[in-house]
Amino acid sequence: MAGETMRGRMEVLATKMQETICAAAEAIEGAPFTRDPWTRPEGGGGLSCVMQDGSVFEKAGVNVSAVHGTLDREAARAMGGGREAGEETLRFFAAGLSVVVHPRNPMAPTAHCNYRYFERGDEGHPAAWWFGGGSDLTPAYLCEEDARHFHGTLKAACDGHDGAFYPRFKAWCDDYFFLPHRGERRGIGGIFFDDLHDRDPGDLFAFVEACARAFVPSYFPLVERHKEEPYTPAQKRWQALRRGRYAEFNLLYDRGTLFGLRTGGRAESILMSLPLEARWEYAHEPAGGSEEERLLHVLKTPRSWA
Amino acid sequence: MAGETMRGRMEVLATKMQETICAAAEAIEGAPFTRDPWTRPEGGGGLSCVMQDGSVFEKAGVNVSAVHGTLDREAARAMGGGREAGEETLRFFAAGLSVVVHPRNPMAPTAHCNYRYFERGDEGHPAAWWFGGGSDLTPAYLCEEDARHFHGTLKAACDGHDGAFYPRFKAWCDDYFFLPHRGERRGIGGIFFDDLHDRDPGDLFAFVEACARAFVPSYFPLVERHKEEPYTPAQKRWQALRRGRYAEFNLLYDRGTLFGLRTGGRAESILMSLPLEARWEYAHEPAGGSEEERLLHVLKTPRSWA
Repeated sequence: MAGETMRGRMEVLATKMQETICAAAEAIEGAPFTRDPWTRPEGGGGLSCVMQDGSVFEKAGVNVSAVHGTLDREAARAMGGGREAGEETLRFFAAGLSVVVHPRNPMAPTAHCNYRYFERGDEGHPAAWWFGGGSDLTPAYLCEEDARHFHGTLKAACDGHDGAFYPRFKAWCDDYFFLPHRGERRGIGGIFFDDLHDRDPGDLFAFVEACARAFVPSYFPLVERHKEEPYTPAQKRWQALRRGRYAEFNLLYDRGTLFGLRTGGRAESILMSLPLEARWEYAHEPAGGSEEERLLHVLKTPRSWA
Repeated sequence: MAGETMRGRMEVLATKMQETICAAAEAIEGAPFTRDPWTRPEGGGGLSCVMQDGSVFEKAGVNVSAVHGTLDREAARAMGGGREAGEETLRFFAAGLSVVVHPRNPMAPTAHCNYRYFERGDEGHPAAWWFGGGSDLTPAYLCEEDARHFHGTLKAACDGHDGAFYPRFKAWCDDYFFLPHRGERRGIGGIFFDDLHDRDPGDLFAFVEACARAFVPSYFPLVERHKEEPYTPAQKRWQALRRGRYAEFNLLYDRGTLFGLRTGGRAESILMSLPLEARWEYAHEPAGGSEEERLLHVLKTPRSWA
């Protein structure tokens, strides 16, 4: 049965978490996700769950996919794994969960999580296998209590497996979600890891499961806290500017987005992460001492939150 | 004096065209551009002229730059030129004009033009030199008269130099502004060329000058025609969706954008091309037989316009 191999276990976990996350968002929104199953002609498929233009959620995507196929050499290099040997490593498998939630209220942060299992080579005796993923928070306005709660919940999930995980993956997250041309990060971080294969796969799976289970308690209480907070049109515009930066990061730098598009992944599922609305103003600078400037400062100089 | 070398001649042309294009837009808008001169710490500088949130122009950027510096090997490969020899080819010079105009009215098309002269190696005896550029139109709604006028004006500019230019550069444009993950082009094309160095530099400069001079007559009459056309909120939303695709192309594929950001170019000037507002809806499909679908058909299957 599907649960027996690591490929199958990851698919089962991703599907279970998808249900849990959708249920949590639906309870807040009071409306269901649209469920859009799809198959990939080259192999595999998935289920994309989308909520759009809701009263609480401007756009939310919860995607599960399990795909396989054959890479060209350039895509193989881009995929990583770092342990390429023979021709068989051009065959790949990737299964996982990918979530992006953009609330309407600019006081409620955007959140993302993504947990994924990869193999190169053949099922049962892969030439390489690894886990990747993480979860990060992107507020338009900094609420320190939110940041502490989000990071604290992730840290607890990490600490249950290895006390070294959280500090390492927190720093990795700050490095990864960086826009060099802006000198700022996309958000206030969380955890990020890739190419994780340095211990028993069952132990790593348990760690990834704990992280995935932490998403709902780490994030949705923040939406509950802020979803009805009053805001001005100027604050909504600032949120749209920040969402422009979000789009910039995903389209210019995000490895999963670029790899997915390059390997003929399903564009609508990959680009589900993009916000409903984004804005670019030339050389926008927040006023000195404003809340907007306070956020930028944290994006330029990451802080410890847990 | 600056006009004597090709570097200098290109700077003079770009500056003159910037003044002409800004004057044409200012006459329509009835308001001035903001003029923002800048210098590049690694060498060179430019002048960015921006109009934002106007009554006719939602966002317009007219940028002149002349920059030089030293490339790392990866950037050197990305820059092209294709005739790399020794170490000296890591030194580069690039001067040119870059224009993007996004009108407010969804019936008025977005236009872009960019004409640029490159050198690798040292001034006076470059290891490689070439011209690149072009001009293309991105409507949210297809107006065939606009398309014929725009292409016809560019064709006339090309034909004055070589009858083979327009067909070759029209096809190149359709190839270049292609979003493979969408199976569609960014717009209805125009002309595009790169690495042009196969005849006398003075002749190529004269051709580039003719193309640059064609921008105002090719485009601004279309803005005049449509700027007060009535439109619905649904049509404005469709424009924002198309501007999402515009942002996708520029951030995922545009060589100039990626090269500029990678080599530490001035981010605000490079990303001036992005629209004021963009929108991404999951799996949006226009209704069968609609004007929106008619546009998509042309983006998927380019047509001849001149």
